[in-house]
Amino acid sequence: MFKAVTSKLAAEIDQELMGPKVGFTLQQLMELAGFSVAQAVTREFPLQNNNEDKHVLIVAGPGNNGGDGLVCARHLKLFGYNPVVFYPKRSKRTEFYGQLVNQLDFFGVPILSEEQDWTVYLNKSKTVCIVDAIFGFSFKPPMREPFSSILDQLSEVDKDIPIVSVDVPSGWDVDNGPITSPHINPTVLVSLTVPKPCSNHIDKSKTAHYVGGRFIPKEFANKYGFEPFNYVSTDQILKL
Amino acid sequence: MFKAVTSKLAAEIDQELMGPKVGFTLQQLMELAGFSVAQAVTREFPLQNNNEDKHVLIVAGPGNNGGDGLVCARHLKLFGYNPVVFYPKRSKRTEFYGQLVNQLDFFGVPILSEEQDWTVYLNKSKTVCIVDAIFGFSFKPPMREPFSSILDQLSEVDKDIPIVSVDVPSGWDVDNGPITSPHINPTVLVSLTVPKPCSNHIDKSKTAHYVGGRFIPKEFANKYGFEPFNYVSTDQILKL
Repeated sequence: MFKAVTSKLAAEIDQELMGPKVGFTLQQLMELAGFSVAQAVTREFPLQNNNEDKHVLIVAGPGNNGGDGLVCARHLKLFGYNPVVFYPKRSKRTEFYGQLVNQLDFFGVPILSEEQDWTVYLNKSKTVCIVDAIFGFSFKPPMREPFSSILDQLSEVDKDIPIVSVDVPSGWDVDNGPITSPHINPTVLVSLTVPKPCSNHIDKSKTAHYVGGRFIPKEFANKYGFEPFNYVSTDQILKL
Repeated sequence: MFKAVTSKLAAEIDQELMGPKVGFTLQQLMELAGFSVAQAVTREFPLQNNNEDKHVLIVAGPGNNGGDGLVCARHLKLFGYNPVVFYPKRSKRTEFYGQLVNQLDFFGVPILSEEQDWTVYLNKSKTVCIVDAIFGFSFKPPMREPFSSILDQLSEVDKDIPIVSVDVPSGWDVDNGPITSPHINPTVLVSLTVPKPCSNHIDKSKTAHYVGGRFIPKEFANKYGFEPFNYVSTDQILKL
């Protein structure tokens, strides 16, 4: 049993963590969040012998959830996977997003633009999994293009190719769960810091649920009405 | 067998990693470096049942090596240890160093100033280990106070309390090894990115040698004349 935290409270937590008192930076939190997602991928889909023929597709959205995906892709490359990133709307919020892209270039990770055909990477026998880093806890409907079409396509393949959603299954209402038909059904959900209410709508018999983003002390968790998670050793994820 | 990289080359590697082309930020690299040191501490000194009576002392220097130590302290706290930081000369290089201190305050990690008596934390039965994050690969003698006195004291206790050195045993010449008498003899050395020549001067029968800071691709390592390290799974350290 765990307590979920609403989208409103999640925004407050984020603001306090990066506020003047605590002083975390986006770069730090994103590095740890992206690392934790890469660790969940590694745990659920261990490297196979025929790994060189396979890839992990990361679909990155326009905001911070997308940034977590970019960091995840870099760590997956370091862990021995072959990540391919589809990043149709590149964030221009801060210079840091450009740096995340440069880092992937440096690692030789392909990054597809909106006009490129990303669907060639949806291949039942070659795609290890799809990391859904499109929308996070600040998502508000209605969804815009190209993301509604992308999510329609993902919801068609999710029976054949496992989807790993970062924090929130993209397209789902953060507090109320699936609101569109079709919608994606992730095989793995990695809640960041603390689960959001939508995670109560996953089918627990089919979806592995992790919490990741290990960066808050006990008192802080308690202040927001939940207990900290019992991560093991240096793990950055915990299976719930 | 591994190839060591001189202080000059290490500076070039650092500069290129944070240069405009690769685009890593200090915040990202420091987060990963500090995490890797915390992982080495966890592996060498697993949590004991009587952990609440024990502490880890982190001695942080004035530069980036000290910053790695501050990050390490935060992760150790998250891993269940009781870190205490001695930070006599606080860096004012960038705002980020102040934020690293705020983060430790937020986690309730004590930070001792120069005028406080840090030696009460040198206790054979209560100090799990000392993290030596005083000087890194850019250290050039002569050493100034208070660090020469601090290192004299550390070299007196290193037979009773294990020292974990970050990248370089502080006070050692990066390329030539120990240059003063007395000098510290670490029980654990965590080389960052790639070992420096001084690591050839450790007594391999007494010192566990790790490499940490897993953030470069193979081609980049080769360009600087070394092979990448075969890290296992999502590990951020590898025992050499």
